[in-house]
Amino acid sequence: MENCCEGAGNFFGRQKNTNIRVSLPAVCFVWQIAMIILFGVFIRYNEESDVRKWIEFKHSHNITSDIENDFYFRYPSFQDVHVMIFVGFGFLMTFLKRYSFSGVGFNFLIAAFGLQWALLMQGWFHSLDPNTGKIYIGVENLINADFCVAGSLIAYGALLGKVSPVQLMVVTLFGVTLFAVEEYIILDLLHCRDAGGSMVIHAFGGYYGLAISWVLYRPNLHQSKRLNGSVYHSDVFAMIGTLFLWMFWPSFNSAITAHGDGQHRAVINTYLALASSVLTAVAISSMSQKRGKLDMVHIQNATLAGGVAMGTAAEFMITPYGSLIVGFCCGIISTFGYVFVTPFLEKYFKIQDTCGIHNLHAVPGMLGGFVGAIVAAAASVEVYGREGLIETFAFEGDFATRSVLTQGGYQAAGTCVAITFGLVGGALVGEFVKCFVYYSTKRLRETVPYKAVCFNNYDKEIQRHGNSNFSVEQS
Amino acid sequence: MENCCEGAGNFFGRQKNTNIRVSLPAVCFVWQIAMIILFGVFIRYNEESDVRKWIEFKHSHNITSDIENDFYFRYPSFQDVHVMIFVGFGFLMTFLKRYSFSGVGFNFLIAAFGLQWALLMQGWFHSLDPNTGKIYIGVENLINADFCVAGSLIAYGALLGKVSPVQLMVVTLFGVTLFAVEEYIILDLLHCRDAGGSMVIHAFGGYYGLAISWVLYRPNLHQSKRLNGSVYHSDVFAMIGTLFLWMFWPSFNSAITAHGDGQHRAVINTYLALASSVLTAVAISSMSQKRGKLDMVHIQNATLAGGVAMGTAAEFMITPYGSLIVGFCCGIISTFGYVFVTPFLEKYFKIQDTCGIHNLHAVPGMLGGFVGAIVAAAASVEVYGREGLIETFAFEGDFATRSVLTQGGYQAAGTCVAITFGLVGGALVGEFVKCFVYYSTKRLRETVPYKAVCFNNYDKEIQRHGNSNFSVEQS
Amino acid sequence: MENCCEGAGNFFGRQKNTNIRVSLPAVCFVWQIAMIILFGVFIRYNEESDVRKWIEFKHSHNITSDIENDFYFRYPSFQDVHVMIFVGFGFLMTFLKRYSFSGVGFNFLIAAFGLQWALLMQGWFHSLDPNTGKIYIGVENLINADFCVAGSLIAYGALLGKVSPVQLMVVTLFGVTLFAVEEYIILDLLHCRDAGGSMVIHAFGGYYGLAISWVLYRPNLHQSKRLNGSVYHSDVFAMIGTLFLWMFWPSFNSAITAHGDGQHRAVINTYLALASSVLTAVAISSMSQKRGKLDMVHIQNATLAGGVAMGTAAEFMITPYGSLIVGFCCGIISTFGYVFVTPFLEKYFKIQDTCGIHNLHAVPGMLGGFVGAIVAAAASVEVYGREGLIETFAFEGDFATRSVLTQGGYQAAGTCVAITFGLVGGALVGEFVKCFVYYSTKRLRETVPYKAVCFNNYDKEIQRHGNSNFSVEQS
Repeated sequence: MENCCEGAGNFFGRQKNTNIRVSLPAVCFVWQIAMIILFGVFIRYNEESDVRKWIEFKHSHNITSDIENDFYFRYPSFQDVHVMIFVGFGFLMTFLKRYSFSGVGFNFLIAAFGLQWALLMQGWFHSLDPNTGKIYIGVENLINADFCVAGSLIAYGALLGKVSPVQLMVVTLFGVTLFAVEEYIILDLLHCRDAGGSMVIHAFGGYYGLAISWVLYRPNLHQSKRLNGSVYHSDVFAMIGTLFLWMFWPSFNSAITAHGDGQHRAVINTYLALASSVLTAVAISSMSQKRGKLDMVHIQNATLAGGVAMGTAAEFMITPYGSLIVGFCCGIISTFGYVFVTPFLEKYFKIQDTCGIHNLHAVPGMLGGFVGAIVAAAASVEVYGREGLIETFAFEGDFATRSVLTQGGYQAAGTCVAITFGLVGGALVGEFVKCFVYYSTKRLRETVPYKAVCFNNYDKEIQRHGNSNFSVEQS
Repeated sequence: MENCCEGAGNFFGRQKNTNIRVSLPAVCFVWQIAMIILFGVFIRYNEESDVRKWIEFKHSHNITSDIENDFYFRYPSFQDVHVMIFVGFGFLMTFLKRYSFSGVGFNFLIAAFGLQWALLMQGWFHSLDPNTGKIYIGVENLINADFCVAGSLIAYGALLGKVSPVQLMVVTLFGVTLFAVEEYIILDLLHCRDAGGSMVIHAFGGYYGLAISWVLYRPNLHQSKRLNGSVYHSDVFAMIGTLFLWMFWPSFNSAITAHGDGQHRAVINTYLALASSVLTAVAISSMSQKRGKLDMVHIQNATLAGGVAMGTAAEFMITPYGSLIVGFCCGIISTFGYVFVTPFLEKYFKIQDTCGIHNLHAVPGMLGGFVGAIVAAAASVEVYGREGLIETFAFEGDFATRSVLTQGGYQAAGTCVAITFGLVGGALVGEFVKCFVYYSTKRLRETVPYKAVCFNNYDKEIQRHGNSNFSVEQS
Repeated sequence: MENCCEGAGNFFGRQKNTNIRVSLPAVCFVWQIAMIILFGVFIRYNEESDVRKWIEFKHSHNITSDIENDFYFRYPSFQDVHVMIFVGFGFLMTFLKRYSFSGVGFNFLIAAFGLQWALLMQGWFHSLDPNTGKIYIGVENLINADFCVAGSLIAYGALLGKVSPVQLMVVTLFGVTLFAVEEYIILDLLHCRDAGGSMVIHAFGGYYGLAISWVLYRPNLHQSKRLNGSVYHSDVFAMIGTLFLWMFWPSFNSAITAHGDGQHRAVINTYLALASSVLTAVAISSMSQKRGKLDMVHIQNATLAGGVAMGTAAEFMITPYGSLIVGFCCGIISTFGYVFVTPFLEKYFKIQDTCGIHNLHAVPGMLGGFVGAIVAAAASVEVYGREGLIETFAFEGDFATRSVLTQGGYQAAGTCVAITFGLVGGALVGEFVKCFVYYSTKRLRETVPYKAVCFNNYDKEIQRHGNSNFSVEQS
């Protein structure tokens, strides 16, 4: 498959001789300058973060206290989400023995880039003021930008150790763009509810990454099997990522739900689902090993499946035991995925999934979408109250007459849209990356995968010790 | 002492041949399914997390803003407490060179299990609605569940490296149960105040763990002395746990105190006591070593003693300098404990206390209980105001006529109740574990303690390097 | 230069034979007791943390809800700042291969000491009640104390690996004192705005540390060049520090800004500036290396420059794209500093700057001060509204008639004051430390720098392995 793009490689022939020293700074500078220009044209403070407008807003809405500013409803959750994006995802990817720098470092780079592009893309689709042509941002936009980036970081999990930073940035640019489009279709056109993003973030991001990984299949990867593993302390580092994701997932699922009971309930549901999936992940992990030992890969990942699966339903009245059941099932399914499905996908479908995002994001996200559909379809006036039903599902405006059953159907349709966007979008982006961006990183391909070839410190160490063998095993 | 239970071992003879691969998944599944059923029967959303009830609650209480939902008063503190439970306790226990996986991993497992059981137990004792027979939960219940689990995690500190996960889960099941009972006696019957849990969490949890460790004494543990220590990086990992505990302890002590001044004051007091105990812990640590060097064990643990000791008094008007004095004394006492008492207990009382919970939780918790008693007894209308006195000590209903002196007496009595529950409960649970759960983990006993025998990755590494000696020292 | 102080050394001749085992505990005890006495004389709860006063305050101000307590506006930000101080600064300094214990441990010690002294110093200068002679504290004072300590922790970055804990505590004592004075001059006398402390924290702290490092120049430090570097996992530990600083910097810059739009806007601006500086730091880092590889030192530090530079302007209406531009420039400047300026300073100016605080704090802080001056001078009634202008710049009382242009001038003057205080104060404190505190640590000087000589565990390890070479490389 590599040959089919030779022509493209020639077309961009100059890139053949360039290397990471030119391409990475060029991409960073061009994109950051583009961001500054686009922000200058489009982005402004909204009425809660602009000093003049906030004073006027308080007067016009008869607000007596600054505590009514949305900032105080959402900022603690925003910071938790922020920690999940940068420490959670970042450290979860440090488990590879020689790729810890790149795991956490490139996660940092693409998240910092992606969130700027996300503010623009989501702004154009969701909050562009038609009168002024501006996007007005506040803390909720920052949360949404972090969410949007999460989709691409999930995709990075499948590609970990096998792509260059420039390829990653391209994947992120398109990932954020696709995300904004599918989010617009799912949330605005289909009018689905998906506050914690089971569909729009996890199902999309998971299948997006898997499709790219499938296109970028590298048959001789098994030669560096030795590096596709952890050492003792890199697994402890990864637990930092796991735990911050696990602990703050209630904030993730409640960050943009309705004020008051909405945020409150989403936290309770997510907290319970996560607790439940820890126990079943441990159980299956122990059963899957000959001597009943636990596998750190399962502890690091499958324990989080309950949070992913509650992304849609957390704000609904799923009941506490309903949350436990969702976590129970997803802990089992996710761990089974790590034990059986990931090796199967690699062997028969040629999908190399370094972090196992299929089991942590793709499948639990898909299930979460369908759980949301079922819970929405089962909603009733007895449980929600009339006012509560309208509030929870935003049955207002064009959607005032929609029934809960119809809503359930649309929720299921939204899940399918997310998966389709992930698969098709990922395949296209994968082909693009392969044809146009691969050649600029020819040198990278010659080096060993799963090794932090883009970072300097490691080499220094080898020279210092004068003993590469030692360092290879050590680091 | 092992022989005395042979009969019991035979009674559960089938277990003799079972191993961790059967017992751990069985326990996880059975308990998680039991949780789902019990949650289905008992647990519901409360009026602040149920969409219908919250709308009605706002109408009936004339509330105009969602910011009045208890969620916004308590959620930031809840998340800090959550970090303390999972990252704080978890990483504090990674210091053992070969037991980091089990330290953080089993902490994760038993906390996730324990918090579900805690929601039920605390619910039955404290918030069961007699009319409906349901427990209605909100964010305060989640905080209390985390608190309740903390007691068992403290006990884990004494047992670290010496018990199997199944034993740990039994210890947690009974620990949470005992906690709920003693909490009911201390807070409801004796009407003590203990927002940060000096008595109910730390004194109880500390003595509970010590009593279990005493019963489970293993005379030949000194043979694996070599593994009962740290390597350079495992000590740095433990510092992550220490610092998150230290930083978020003000949230721990203020999480369920009164809205407004109560939370505010508890934060200030805890912040100051912690700062003070850092300096005295460092001072005693340096004095205790021949060449004045600091011991990481003291820095990791004794610096936290001030927070433990302020658990009861933090919400009272102890004054800022009073907090400094408490931290000052506890930093000294705790470090002395690590230098002299822990070796003494092991040598003469046969109590093996891996993490030194005697010095960090048991003694400072007990002192905190008595400090609380003294500060309560010294309360006056001049300082608190009449309304403030009623508010702070909840002198309402049956307790409207209680004097502050009486309250002080009850606080002291509560401390004794907590210690008694810890010691007696721990001894009984220890015997139970020894007789009924020990044999199922026969294989575990044959392996080296302080080594993560229940995790898989380590073995892989040995095989990879083909050099076990190297790996033993390395990991 | 060492000889010039021999006399002083003789004067304190007794200290010549003392060692760390006497001096460190003595300093800790004396200072902690002094703190208790001074707190007893001066520090009291303020009207929002005192139970009696808060009830009266609510009555007199007609406040109906406890949520109006400043605690709920500031506590989440406080906890984030707290994490930055202890985990952020602490772990950022663990990168040295043999100095991780001291990096995080002494950071912990001096921060815990410094914040107590800061509460007093800042209280005397800013919130001493002239009637009662007391300082009344609440959560905002805790935040300011953390800020004040940050100045000295920055200075520690330049001295890392080269000073004893006693010297560090003296540096902190004077650092906090100087900070309180310059802060009083800049904020109160010159009436500058500096909520995130570009001037008062970063420019001051940076130049303070550099001046001390210049005075304490040690010519033969290159002999231990080998230890002035990282190992693979110590660089991953440092990333924990980096990420927590990066993620929580929006809280740092917004922690004490105006309620409502002020905190909201400061978060948005800082978030954007930080994202922007990640991209340019990566770009320059890649360009600066022969093969385009990234240097972990740049990723760990220069990515934060955008946050430092927004310390003053974050609360102003700098616009989102303005924030991006500031981050863009500072990411470039900071990385250039690491590549060119730090080696230059060491070679020609004899300033040894272990962490490169010149590039992360001193220069971006200075630039941030001037950015703030420009943005203040460009403020207009159109953008801020009349009421907003008064609110943002506190044009009240004596300053009611000040124009924005004048304000800009004063902001620039304030930056110069901060730098002057840093340089002159640092030189004086450096001389003091050299003359009076050096001799007490004679033994320290004989040992290898950049090695945790004050911690015990490392030695144990050597003995355990019986192979020092092995351990040296390992740790």
